[in-house]
Amino acid sequence: MQLNRFMIRPYVEQALREEVGPGDTTGGFLVGDDPIQTGQIYAKGSGIVCGLLLADETVKTIDPDAVIEQPLKDGDPIGPGTVLLKITAKASTFFMIERCALDWLQQMSAIATKTRRYCDLVKHTKVRLTDTRKGWPGLRMLQKYAVRVGGANNHIFSLHNCVLVKDNHIKIAGGIKPAMEILRARAQHTFKIEVECESLEMVQEALDCGVEVIMFDNMDLDDMRRALTLVNGRAITEASGGINETTIVAIAETGVDVISIGDLTHSIRAIDISLDVKDIKPSAQRDIARLRAAGD
Amino acid sequence: MQLNRFMIRPYVEQALREEVGPGDTTGGFLVGDDPIQTGQIYAKGSGIVCGLLLADETVKTIDPDAVIEQPLKDGDPIGPGTVLLKITAKASTFFMIERCALDWLQQMSAIATKTRRYCDLVKHTKVRLTDTRKGWPGLRMLQKYAVRVGGANNHIFSLHNCVLVKDNHIKIAGGIKPAMEILRARAQHTFKIEVECESLEMVQEALDCGVEVIMFDNMDLDDMRRALTLVNGRAITEASGGINETTIVAIAETGVDVISIGDLTHSIRAIDISLDVKDIKPSAQRDIARLRAAGD
Amino acid sequence: MQLNRFMIRPYVEQALREEVGPGDTTGGFLVGDDPIQTGQIYAKGSGIVCGLLLADETVKTIDPDAVIEQPLKDGDPIGPGTVLLKITAKASTFFMIERCALDWLQQMSAIATKTRRYCDLVKHTKVRLTDTRKGWPGLRMLQKYAVRVGGANNHIFSLHNCVLVKDNHIKIAGGIKPAMEILRARAQHTFKIEVECESLEMVQEALDCGVEVIMFDNMDLDDMRRALTLVNGRAITEASGGINETTIVAIAETGVDVISIGDLTHSIRAIDISLDVKDIKPSAQRDIARLRAAGD
Amino acid sequence: MQLNRFMIRPYVEQALREEVGPGDTTGGFLVGDDPIQTGQIYAKGSGIVCGLLLADETVKTIDPDAVIEQPLKDGDPIGPGTVLLKITAKASTFFMIERCALDWLQQMSAIATKTRRYCDLVKHTKVRLTDTRKGWPGLRMLQKYAVRVGGANNHIFSLHNCVLVKDNHIKIAGGIKPAMEILRARAQHTFKIEVECESLEMVQEALDCGVEVIMFDNMDLDDMRRALTLVNGRAITEASGGINETTIVAIAETGVDVISIGDLTHSIRAIDISLDVKDIKPSAQRDIARLRAAGD
Amino acid sequence: MQLNRFMIRPYVEQALREEVGPGDTTGGFLVGDDPIQTGQIYAKGSGIVCGLLLADETVKTIDPDAVIEQPLKDGDPIGPGTVLLKITAKASTFFMIERCALDWLQQMSAIATKTRRYCDLVKHTKVRLTDTRKGWPGLRMLQKYAVRVGGANNHIFSLHNCVLVKDNHIKIAGGIKPAMEILRARAQHTFKIEVECESLEMVQEALDCGVEVIMFDNMDLDDMRRALTLVNGRAITEASGGINETTIVAIAETGVDVISIGDLTHSIRAIDISLDVKDIKPSAQRDIARLRAAGD
Amino acid sequence: MQLNRFMIRPYVEQALREEVGPGDTTGGFLVGDDPIQTGQIYAKGSGIVCGLLLADETVKTIDPDAVIEQPLKDGDPIGPGTVLLKITAKASTFFMIERCALDWLQQMSAIATKTRRYCDLVKHTKVRLTDTRKGWPGLRMLQKYAVRVGGANNHIFSLHNCVLVKDNHIKIAGGIKPAMEILRARAQHTFKIEVECESLEMVQEALDCGVEVIMFDNMDLDDMRRALTLVNGRAITEASGGINETTIVAIAETGVDVISIGDLTHSIRAIDISLDVKDIKPSAQRDIARLRAAGD
Repeated sequence: MQLNRFMIRPYVEQALREEVGPGDTTGGFLVGDDPIQTGQIYAKGSGIVCGLLLADETVKTIDPDAVIEQPLKDGDPIGPGTVLLKITAKASTFFMIERCALDWLQQMSAIATKTRRYCDLVKHTKVRLTDTRKGWPGLRMLQKYAVRVGGANNHIFSLHNCVLVKDNHIKIAGGIKPAMEILRARAQHTFKIEVECESLEMVQEALDCGVEVIMFDNMDLDDMRRALTLVNGRAITEASGGINETTIVAIAETGVDVISIGDLTHSIRAIDISLDVKDIKPSAQRDIARLRAAGD
Repeated sequence: MQLNRFMIRPYVEQALREEVGPGDTTGGFLVGDDPIQTGQIYAKGSGIVCGLLLADETVKTIDPDAVIEQPLKDGDPIGPGTVLLKITAKASTFFMIERCALDWLQQMSAIATKTRRYCDLVKHTKVRLTDTRKGWPGLRMLQKYAVRVGGANNHIFSLHNCVLVKDNHIKIAGGIKPAMEILRARAQHTFKIEVECESLEMVQEALDCGVEVIMFDNMDLDDMRRALTLVNGRAITEASGGINETTIVAIAETGVDVISIGDLTHSIRAIDISLDVKDIKPSAQRDIARLRAAGD
Repeated sequence: MQLNRFMIRPYVEQALREEVGPGDTTGGFLVGDDPIQTGQIYAKGSGIVCGLLLADETVKTIDPDAVIEQPLKDGDPIGPGTVLLKITAKASTFFMIERCALDWLQQMSAIATKTRRYCDLVKHTKVRLTDTRKGWPGLRMLQKYAVRVGGANNHIFSLHNCVLVKDNHIKIAGGIKPAMEILRARAQHTFKIEVECESLEMVQEALDCGVEVIMFDNMDLDDMRRALTLVNGRAITEASGGINETTIVAIAETGVDVISIGDLTHSIRAIDISLDVKDIKPSAQRDIARLRAAGD
Repeated sequence: MQLNRFMIRPYVEQALREEVGPGDTTGGFLVGDDPIQTGQIYAKGSGIVCGLLLADETVKTIDPDAVIEQPLKDGDPIGPGTVLLKITAKASTFFMIERCALDWLQQMSAIATKTRRYCDLVKHTKVRLTDTRKGWPGLRMLQKYAVRVGGANNHIFSLHNCVLVKDNHIKIAGGIKPAMEILRARAQHTFKIEVECESLEMVQEALDCGVEVIMFDNMDLDDMRRALTLVNGRAITEASGGINETTIVAIAETGVDVISIGDLTHSIRAIDISLDVKDIKPSAQRDIARLRAAGD
Repeated sequence: MQLNRFMIRPYVEQALREEVGPGDTTGGFLVGDDPIQTGQIYAKGSGIVCGLLLADETVKTIDPDAVIEQPLKDGDPIGPGTVLLKITAKASTFFMIERCALDWLQQMSAIATKTRRYCDLVKHTKVRLTDTRKGWPGLRMLQKYAVRVGGANNHIFSLHNCVLVKDNHIKIAGGIKPAMEILRARAQHTFKIEVECESLEMVQEALDCGVEVIMFDNMDLDDMRRALTLVNGRAITEASGGINETTIVAIAETGVDVISIGDLTHSIRAIDISLDVKDIKPSAQRDIARLRAAGD
Repeated sequence: MQLNRFMIRPYVEQALREEVGPGDTTGGFLVGDDPIQTGQIYAKGSGIVCGLLLADETVKTIDPDAVIEQPLKDGDPIGPGTVLLKITAKASTFFMIERCALDWLQQMSAIATKTRRYCDLVKHTKVRLTDTRKGWPGLRMLQKYAVRVGGANNHIFSLHNCVLVKDNHIKIAGGIKPAMEILRARAQHTFKIEVECESLEMVQEALDCGVEVIMFDNMDLDDMRRALTLVNGRAITEASGGINETTIVAIAETGVDVISIGDLTHSIRAIDISLDVKDIKPSAQRDIARLRAAGD
């Protein structure tokens, strides 16, 4: 599932309004004839690239006539020196797009890279890794896309595309059973119902109600194993709650079906990516001559 | 400089449209009479709290009648169990705001906490720490606010509120001197001019042009010390480029005036914060009774 | 699942910008002192009321000080003379809100009323009725809410909250089996997979792949009965395709689990609802006196 | 007066954000190499086509490189099998645009078709048919355009482009005469003034004030004929109020100048229109191979 | 016709986003405890006040708890020292709203004041003065409101609320007669048709077609008098084209019905209005003490 | 620093939505086959042209296929007859864009022209002229751009890109010295600090604090000269406060560095600019024939 330009445009435009605002008060004054230049965005760090379409759209928004070559695609590995985009555009364009284009790539590649590392840790098991909804509010589409690019799956996107029953839901309904009764009657029939269970008793009650997905919420390994025995294939099982690089392998090896990991998106380390413009032609001379003439 | 509700509202609304969309298809079906409940947002991890107004506005957007107590203010230290907000609102409100309210706090506190740690490392020196423009595009106001809350200063916000001369600017102008000539003539006279210098030669040239702020861009410690000797108080000096917790103390001890650090915002670790709703009253019984009656 | 003011505001505001624009060039000139009046919105036709919050928000947007009493709630039956809202507001408010407030109610009640009628036709069976995504693009949240108010359930809201496999999806994947293979691997694990089947062969193939929801797409009654025998409880079954008031009862009586009906939202008949303002006080006299004085 | 792309874009974009949101979770996972396909939108029902530009813009928004042939223009008659648009685009495009493109056509053609039927009923008279402002709030431009395509005229668009004096306006002004006095003094001099009259007395009073357009509001045929005699060409006359296919001919034959009909837009029956994609090439094999390899 | 808060909010918010952006980097750092202050907006120049609601909404947007007294209403005369608004609000509010609140008042009062002066010049005649659509695009609602406040009327607001036939329209239709034929058949029947005439021949042709409003476009006084004789009350007459304070009286005295004047809105002189905050309490001491302590 | 299409688009679109709204109800009905025409925008008055990109974008927004030639660039002198843009586009385009395209040019050229006149008055001195933030709120980017085009510089854009200390700031801080103490500690280190001084005492105090820019706020010429002697090159000096064409030369000749002038943007006189479409082809005949046929 690729990103679509139509869907990313509002993010790219908000970023450029923030970065450029009413104008670039350094580059804007210096470009003179504004010659066409070529430049490239390249990696200084290593990881999995993600966000190429956002970088591309950033350039195109400022300079619709820019020509962009893109030798890679999202999900490809990068290392120091790997070229991500080659750009031919007006000099003023490079000054305006640099920070935004790089930041989209640095942050989204950070998520993809971390995700790939987690996937590699558990590839000897059958487990499916997913994200959660944690991270920066408002940027969920981009964060979840980066998780897919990294090789994991997406958990629910919002409160609108799931039936995810948590502790407080159960309390307000008066138990798992009455909650299921209402949700079976009212919820979209194409949703599976998932219930967060904190104890073996809750797992048993959920099973008795025919719940399709059972989340083991912050269970320790022993309880998780007992819960898996209890479920015995009658529901999809999911481990969740503070899982990290240290704990994930043991959890995956229990045989749980899914592990959902907030850490993929809420705590990230930027991948170092940079922009280099080639052979810049001095173009401000005429302006300088004019300034000096005016000064006499 | 506080955040203003007017200024954060677009961020809060975008996040809620993303999270709730056309409706909460779990909680929305279960709340029944939708009783008023009280709950609290509290810390599980430790750090510096930031983002309280965003959490507050998130609640108020969904439920304008909610009553919120806020015992802390942004910048206060928190630890496991610290209560951040006490909320009295409809049960359905808690279900809709949980993820967004927590995520604003988790991400913004992450930045404030990291910033405070960096500040503490160098408090024996006179150095001023600042952020950069790195991080998630489009969220700059929030990220930079969190840096201030953590105790550091803000570097430039955008290409519009500075004159920051980089390598490519110098090339396009044909040197530091002609660049200064143009910028002195055209740029807002209330801006200082900052020049990124990669060598001692550039530092000397910048000094000769009367540049007000000189950035030592990715210089090693020895060059930085030589550059400081050269400058000798005639300009504000700033160290920048890949600075982290390991390298910051030695850099600060050179006597440089400012250190700008992308790491404060581009690589962060969420602070664990949670929501707890008290004594939830089962409220769906009437609905269940109605469903059962209909089922006959 | 109630509508939330936050979620309907953009619809209400767009409608008022369209209706009032830069000002009401009749009422705006006539109101003079703009006295407070009381008025009521009442039914002239019969049906199920829906859209009260939109009418309420329409009034509040124009006149935040208006006082509104709402004796009914969405889903209640109405008939000629039933009062829906009592409004105390400035005279100018009534002029500006009339058309929008009534139209929200007329169109949404039309859907709720039609839905209730369909529900009543099949209430002797166990079938669940749902809408489709058909109707006016851009207003889906409101149209689907009205269907729920009428007593039916919602089918999928968008391409983002389902896995709904249609003919062309099967072709592009090279068959139901490979389609399932990809979707099981990539799709959100909390979604059931639904496959549209046009023949008994497709139903059999879907069953063999363990598809959770099988849609009988435009099947005649005989094929539907055969398909139900084939499925025999191993999947949720859904009838769809041009179903109307004439055909629905027989389909429901086959024992199919779900019937989805585009007709609920794409073809509707407005319920007649009107506004009456009480005892209007002439308030323009001072203006008239002034005009006459100016005319001398 | 054609629709302009600039003016319809917000409607098309709102619809696609609603339909596709953060991505198509069925088609998006299945398209593999995303081959270029051809398809066509064609009629299954009969009527007058309307909304072609919205369908076209829907495709172009998702896939700017799509090639579209449009053999018809809005207002042309269609019947089962008539081709409305031929589209060459990526497979993923067809999945994303299907529902929106069809729904714009189905709903707008519904209005155009109903309008044409009404126009045909009265074409032996000199009457001019118009719409009202009734229907779905927020979509007025599209609904009124469809009425014009169907062959009728538009009544006022909003409270801002008319002086339409209703019962309550008259009361607040203290009579038709003082209302006219104010409106003549203040209203845009290029507007005719229209007064809704419920009785012959009001018609006479309006005539005495030189009102340019007199609406016979819910009058029966006899009163309408008497009113027409009274007016005798001194004002434009308009019949309004609950007019439908049964009553329109007799009203038109009274010789009234204009009949305005809410029914054209508030109660409509969708025209059945469908999308067919030709010879779909299986394109997901590489993905399946990769999945199987990963599964080992 | 008053401005409505709902209708002005987008203008006020756009202005504040522009003025304050991510924060007030002077006042925001200085306010310390941010004490409640009182202040007043008062006139330094003379004229007709306009824009009070925009000033009020500007304050309320930044500080919903502010208390505002408004002793005047739009249209009242002001002179040096007249108090327009008394404001009690946080100190930080005054810093953020000053420029925007004053500028709305200065620019809108400029238009109202100029309009009043023109009205006074011709009040011995029966002429009606109106604006045109000239001025700053995008602010038409506010500019036209100010004209009404000044005492003149509004000409058409947009291409959508009129039938205004100009030279090029006539050419494309092949003459006034065929243009009228089409427009009578298609245009909203509540619009009068206005034709711009540059010669007596055109006036005669327009009269022959029964045109309701005839504009004398850039005619000299003699031609205008001849045209008025020709029209002789059979149409509303309007003079337009470069009319200013020097020429308006003679034109008004010809007896023409309407004079439309671009000069009211396209060329204006700001009225001097200022803000004064009373008895400001120093509130930053605690901050200074903290800074000094930190400096040790 | 050029305007960028991306940055002006919201202004252009808002203006066209206002002007055209749901359609041009004159030209839209008359264009018939809508033939391609050529036309030109040309000056009738004299001055400095500004706003060409806004005119161009206005045309392109309505008609992306239009071809535009632009023989001039912003800042060029124009006089009666000078051609600004040559446009080849559909006839309907000319009708829709005329007012907006001309108004952008008329208003922006007004500012550029006035600015150029001021610059010419003082070109024998070394003074730098700047604008202020006065004028129409919400259009600051365009107003300030026009000032640059006219040859002056921009003063601060917003409260966010400066540290501008005014009377009330000094009071709330308890003096210039404590204000400086806070601002030096907290404000962006790349901003110079500017202090508005109303007396020689304040100038002395500001100098003692090392303030970088000192504004002489409404000082008379004698005080200004004394203040300049006091400053003696230790700060940038700026004169401000009600400066106009009469007073500017004497002020400039004092040797002050900068003069900031609200008059450049808050009080302007439109430059007369017009649109002429060539050889319009009658294109409505077919429509007329059809109307007549229908009339039989």
